[in-house]
Amino acid sequence: MFDNKDSKTNLSELGEFGLIDHLTRFVEINQPSTKTGIGDDAAVLHFEDEEVVLTTDMLVEGVHFDLAYMPLKHLGYKAVMVNLSDVYAMNAEATQITVSIAASNRFPVEALEELYSGILLAAKNYKVDLVGGDTTSSTAGLIISISAVGKAKKETIVKRSGAKANDLLVVTGDVGAAYMGLQVLEREKQVFKVNPNAQPDLEPYSYIVERQLKPEARKDIPDLLKALEVQPTSMIDISDGLSSEIIHLCKSSKTGANLFEEKIPLDPAVISVCEEFNIDSTMVALSGGEDYELLFTLDQKDFDKIKGNPNLTVIGHMTEENEGMHLITRANQKIPIKARGWNSFEDEAE
Amino acid sequence: MFDNKDSKTNLSELGEFGLIDHLTRFVEINQPSTKTGIGDDAAVLHFEDEEVVLTTDMLVEGVHFDLAYMPLKHLGYKAVMVNLSDVYAMNAEATQITVSIAASNRFPVEALEELYSGILLAAKNYKVDLVGGDTTSSTAGLIISISAVGKAKKETIVKRSGAKANDLLVVTGDVGAAYMGLQVLEREKQVFKVNPNAQPDLEPYSYIVERQLKPEARKDIPDLLKALEVQPTSMIDISDGLSSEIIHLCKSSKTGANLFEEKIPLDPAVISVCEEFNIDSTMVALSGGEDYELLFTLDQKDFDKIKGNPNLTVIGHMTEENEGMHLITRANQKIPIKARGWNSFEDEAE
Repeated sequence: MFDNKDSKTNLSELGEFGLIDHLTRFVEINQPSTKTGIGDDAAVLHFEDEEVVLTTDMLVEGVHFDLAYMPLKHLGYKAVMVNLSDVYAMNAEATQITVSIAASNRFPVEALEELYSGILLAAKNYKVDLVGGDTTSSTAGLIISISAVGKAKKETIVKRSGAKANDLLVVTGDVGAAYMGLQVLEREKQVFKVNPNAQPDLEPYSYIVERQLKPEARKDIPDLLKALEVQPTSMIDISDGLSSEIIHLCKSSKTGANLFEEKIPLDPAVISVCEEFNIDSTMVALSGGEDYELLFTLDQKDFDKIKGNPNLTVIGHMTEENEGMHLITRANQKIPIKARGWNSFEDEAE
Repeated sequence: MFDNKDSKTNLSELGEFGLIDHLTRFVEINQPSTKTGIGDDAAVLHFEDEEVVLTTDMLVEGVHFDLAYMPLKHLGYKAVMVNLSDVYAMNAEATQITVSIAASNRFPVEALEELYSGILLAAKNYKVDLVGGDTTSSTAGLIISISAVGKAKKETIVKRSGAKANDLLVVTGDVGAAYMGLQVLEREKQVFKVNPNAQPDLEPYSYIVERQLKPEARKDIPDLLKALEVQPTSMIDISDGLSSEIIHLCKSSKTGANLFEEKIPLDPAVISVCEEFNIDSTMVALSGGEDYELLFTLDQKDFDKIKGNPNLTVIGHMTEENEGMHLITRANQKIPIKARGWNSFEDEAE
């Protein structure tokens, strides 16, 4: 991915402190809550009358990403999205991130600059401050660990545990595209292995490939919910696929759920590429993951407030816990929902 | 380290969610500022009228630790200490941590339980809540990324940048022991390679080996400074050796410094093992690192408040920036202080 670069600077030439200074020299501070950023033992933050939310995620080369088709800049961007998505899933505003990176010496300084350029672009686009981190060497591969901080008024924070029977189940955007984007990229990688001169035409797949390589977290949804005067009863982000997230909401809220297959929002590009790959699109939506959309529940009385909004689709409703969790198919069959989300340990064991 | 265990459970048997539930089932919440801990998209924290401090550190197998002599429980404990030390270096109280772990499938569940037992012991001893994290697989080795949150009144926070010429330079405890502990452990590892039946007698080295394997962060120092009514002008923790940290304080504060060799506090065990290894003990104190003591400066008028305190040693004073940073030797020679602290990239390049 970065072997064609003209200039290569070995990490040891800069040293640990020099490298951190070098990579963070363009960092800007914009959040009023950031009092001290990078450069001390810890960042100093101040939040007025607001709750602080804190989340962390780790991405490991060979497990969560493959540099054969993931440009480093996109990887940096996506690593930030994964974390911000968790903040938005609390109905909070993301304010700060810290970034820790371990890289083997196969990565020159220029590669880490690429990675950081994606991280800083994400920070800029989403108005979060990079306030700390750690950069170190690894014996093998690249590992990125990001923590994100956000803020929200106590009364607006949404947990996974507040859903009640008869609440509507709502999803933002569409689902399944990131997974099918990955399938297309994997196929091109195999073609490339056989014929390195093959020029892939990814144009017909641009939407789904972009959903995989450059996902956007739903920063707009907490704002939209506020504008619509809607307070969800529970919420979660879709990182592991719809079925896995529905199970999380139901378990935390002690409810069941009915999900209607015909209601699941799919982009036309997902439907056509599922046909091409001969994969069931509902299965992709249920188990695909990495869409970073939000899944939430709300009281039926709020239905009129969200009705017709192009960002929001009602896909089902919650039930009593003893009724279980089911997919209602187009043929009106009732199929139990099982966790089939992405599982990094299973992937490894396969 | 963990191959002799009778029971071995492959990570994939539990799956990612099962593993996190399993490892965190004994987590207790004690801090009033923790509103929601593990189990949602993000933790929810609330701080009343106080600044929030945030820091993060990553430990990589083969770079920061060697499982040949580092028991996993100790590793977990130390990984927390490394982060809490940064919080105390802000003169703040540590309140929460998040823990992300990537482990290859050579680690059975029981190994991660050992690691977590050390993390939870540290959390208990230091009264911090484990409020989030991520557990995933890696393609090689073990990586631990921890973030720590703390709190402090705005007026008590101490940065690296407030030192002034003529301020006293003070260190807590003693330095150099962790580095010499590492030398002893490395030697035993080599002996073991040649003769696996050799029974090492580490008894004479117990203090220095413990400083390496089970360091304690100086949680007591912010309390002590408060009790003594001392507000340091600058502070940093000693992770990379005295010389490297003095340079950080001087650069951030735009001062120089004079460090007096004869004042550097060394434990008798360090002096005797330095003689045994034929290493200069001052060099060890300057460049050794991993002691997790605190280094701070304070106004000369506060000298009477700290005089004679067994936890605190005045080792020098700050000067004007243009005077530079110097070690004043026992022979009254003036030697420029250079960064020789631990550098993970240089270590790798060697």
